[in-house]
Amino acid sequence: MTSNANIVYLDNNATTRVDPAVRDAMLPYLSESYANPSSPYTFARAPMLAIAQARRQVAALLSAEPEQITFTSCGTESSNTALHSALRARPGRKSIVTTSVEHPSILRYCERLESHGYNVTYLPVDRNGQLVLKELELSISDDTAIVSVMWANNETGILFPVREAAAAAHCAGALFHTDAVQACGKVTIDLSDGLIDLLSLSAHKFHGPKGVGALFARDPDLLSSYLFGGEQERGRRAGTENVPGIAGIGKAAELAGAQLREHPADIAEMRDAFEQTLSGACSCLLTGTQGARLPNTSHIVFPGVEAETLIHLLDFDHICCSSGSACASGSSEPSHVLTAMGFSRQDARSALRVSFSRFNSSHDAEFAAGRVVEAARRLSGKHRC
Amino acid sequence: MTSNANIVYLDNNATTRVDPAVRDAMLPYLSESYANPSSPYTFARAPMLAIAQARRQVAALLSAEPEQITFTSCGTESSNTALHSALRARPGRKSIVTTSVEHPSILRYCERLESHGYNVTYLPVDRNGQLVLKELELSISDDTAIVSVMWANNETGILFPVREAAAAAHCAGALFHTDAVQACGKVTIDLSDGLIDLLSLSAHKFHGPKGVGALFARDPDLLSSYLFGGEQERGRRAGTENVPGIAGIGKAAELAGAQLREHPADIAEMRDAFEQTLSGACSCLLTGTQGARLPNTSHIVFPGVEAETLIHLLDFDHICCSSGSACASGSSEPSHVLTAMGFSRQDARSALRVSFSRFNSSHDAEFAAGRVVEAARRLSGKHRC
Repeated sequence: MTSNANIVYLDNNATTRVDPAVRDAMLPYLSESYANPSSPYTFARAPMLAIAQARRQVAALLSAEPEQITFTSCGTESSNTALHSALRARPGRKSIVTTSVEHPSILRYCERLESHGYNVTYLPVDRNGQLVLKELELSISDDTAIVSVMWANNETGILFPVREAAAAAHCAGALFHTDAVQACGKVTIDLSDGLIDLLSLSAHKFHGPKGVGALFARDPDLLSSYLFGGEQERGRRAGTENVPGIAGIGKAAELAGAQLREHPADIAEMRDAFEQTLSGACSCLLTGTQGARLPNTSHIVFPGVEAETLIHLLDFDHICCSSGSACASGSSEPSHVLTAMGFSRQDARSALRVSFSRFNSSHDAEFAAGRVVEAARRLSGKHRC
Repeated sequence: MTSNANIVYLDNNATTRVDPAVRDAMLPYLSESYANPSSPYTFARAPMLAIAQARRQVAALLSAEPEQITFTSCGTESSNTALHSALRARPGRKSIVTTSVEHPSILRYCERLESHGYNVTYLPVDRNGQLVLKELELSISDDTAIVSVMWANNETGILFPVREAAAAAHCAGALFHTDAVQACGKVTIDLSDGLIDLLSLSAHKFHGPKGVGALFARDPDLLSSYLFGGEQERGRRAGTENVPGIAGIGKAAELAGAQLREHPADIAEMRDAFEQTLSGACSCLLTGTQGARLPNTSHIVFPGVEAETLIHLLDFDHICCSSGSACASGSSEPSHVLTAMGFSRQDARSALRVSFSRFNSSHDAEFAAGRVVEAARRLSGKHRC
C-alpha cells in the first residue's frame, strides 16, 4: 500500500478522507454496541439513540427537521428513491424535467422511466455550464410530476439555481428534487424556506464513510421505500439500519457544519491560489468561473493535452486527481457534462478536475500547481503549455 | 450505555457482534486508504485489491467463483435485486412461486409484483414449519419466472429443501432464488453443483458489519442492477462501493468458513444444552425439532405466557432474545411464520427465539436457561410452567 503520508489527494469530489472523529463516532457500533436499534431490550438503546442523534446532526446541516431525514445506503439510492417517490405522489403525471448534466443516478433512472412510458426532458446547459431558467420554465407543464436539478455539478463544480427551479416546478404543481451529493458540506444548504421537496446527499463526499446516504423530504409522508422489506426508518427504507454508517454520517454532518461556519473561506483560498499559478503559467481554460461554483473545485481544460496521460504523470508525484466523474472512470467516452457544454470531444478529453478539502494545505495547492504546469507543458510539447 | 460485559446476547438471528478481526480488516478503509476503488491512480489500488479479496473470501464460503458475487447494501437489497433480475431474465413469464414464511424482503416485493399484474403463489407450510415439496412442484408451471424459497427460516431456524426446490424450478425452465441470509455462516453452503441460480446473504448475520450484503448469481450476466446510476460492480450495482463494509463481509466470510470447518458442533452443543434444561423444567414446546434446523436456533412456545413480557423480564438479567423476526419488532401482530404453521394467534404470541453464536459460552446457555424457566414459571402463575 502506498504510504498515505506521501499522497496529495486532490480528488475530493470523487470521495474524501474519513475524518478521524467520524471513524471514532462509528467504532462503538462496530464493537460493543452491536444490537439492532429496533430490538426489544435495553442493549438496543444505544444504537437507537445513535440513529436519533445522527438524524438531528444531518438535519442541522440542512436547517431541516430530524423527521425530514431518512437514511439510505448511498446518494444513488437517495436519488432513485426521490424520483420513485415523486412519481407515486403525483400518479396522474407522466413527465419528468431534468438536465443533461445530472449524475448517472438521475440520468439512468430517467432512461428507465422512458422505457416505462414516461416523457423525460433533458435540458441543455449553455457554454458556461449553466441552466437557462427560461428554458426550464417553458419545459414544465401540468403533466410534470417532478423536476430534478442538481445543486452543484460533480465535474465542473457549477452551482445551479435550485430555488428558482423549485419555484418554477411548484407553479405547475410538480415536486422538486435536487441531487446535493456534491454540494452538501461544501456550501451552506438551508432548507428552512420549504422550497425544496426532496434532496439527496452522501456521507463519503464530506468526510463520512462510504455506504451511507440520506434523503431529505420536506413532507416525509411523501416517501415510498425503494427497497421492499422490513419497516425500518418508519417504513421509509427497508433493510437493517447501518448503525455505524449512520453514526458516521451524523458526525460528518456536524463537522461539515462547523467548517462552513468557522472557516468559510479556507478551501476557496487554496483553490484560488492553485488556479492563479496555473493561469499565470499556462494557456489553459478554467471552466465555470463566469458564475457561482463550488469553492473547492477547479476544472481546467488543457487544449491538445490528453487528460488521462496528465493524470498518470501526476500519479508519479502521488498527486491524485481526476478527469471527470468517478463513476465514469475507466470509460474512454468523453464526459457527458463537457459535451453538453459544447466542448468538442477532443477538448472534453483534455479536462482535469482538481478538488480540495479541509485536509489539504496551501502547500498541497502550491506543489500540485507546479506539477500540473510541468506535466501539461511536457504533454503539449511546448515550453509554455 | 449498558456495559457490554454484562450482556448475555442470545439474539444472533437478529444481528451479531462484529468480530474484532472483521473490524480490524475494515479500519484501513476508514482511515488511510480512502480512495474510490475505480479511481485512475495508484492510491486507488489498495481499496480495489480489498474488494477483489473480499469477493474471493465470500465466494470461498459458498464454494462459488469470485465473479459470481456482487456486493450490495443489505440482504433486503440482495433479495429485491434477485427477483427484479429474474423477471427481466424471463420476460414472458408472469408467475412467481414462494412460501408464506419468507422474510418481508421477499413477501413485500411479491406484493408489489402482484399490484403490477404478476401472479404470486405463497405456499403454505405444515405444522412442523416444513414445505411440502409435492405442493411446490404442482404450483410451478411454464409461466413461472422464479421460485424463491429461503434456505433457513429466520424465526424457527427450520431448513428448507432448497436443492429439491431448485430442481423443480429448473424442470419448468424457471430460475431459483434462495434467501440464505439466516443460513449463511451457520450451515455449510456449497453452490458448486450449480443448482442454485441466485442466493442472498447479509454480513451482519455472521459477525460482519451492518450495511453490506452480497448476491450470488450462478450466471452473473443474469443480474440487472436494482439501483440506477454508475457502473460499479461491473454494472451490476450502482453506487460508490462501500469499501470498508466489503472488506468486512470478506473477513467475516473467511472466519465463518473456519468456524464451520474447525468447530462444527460447538454452537449446537450450547443450544442443545439450553433446550435440555428447558425441556426438563417446563411444559414448553420446541418448534422445528422434527426435521433439519439451524444449529444455533431455539424456538420455544410457552403456552399461556406473553413472550413480550418474558423478554422484558429477561432484559432485567441483561439477557437479549427475541419474540420473532427483528423486522417485526414493535409490531403487536403475531408472527406470520407461526400463524402459517397453524399456531393460534395466542400461541404465536407465546414464542421465544433464542439464537446462539460463537461468541456465546456454555455458561451463557446455562444461565439463560435458568432465567427463562424462572420467568416463564412466574408468568404462567405455576410452580412448574
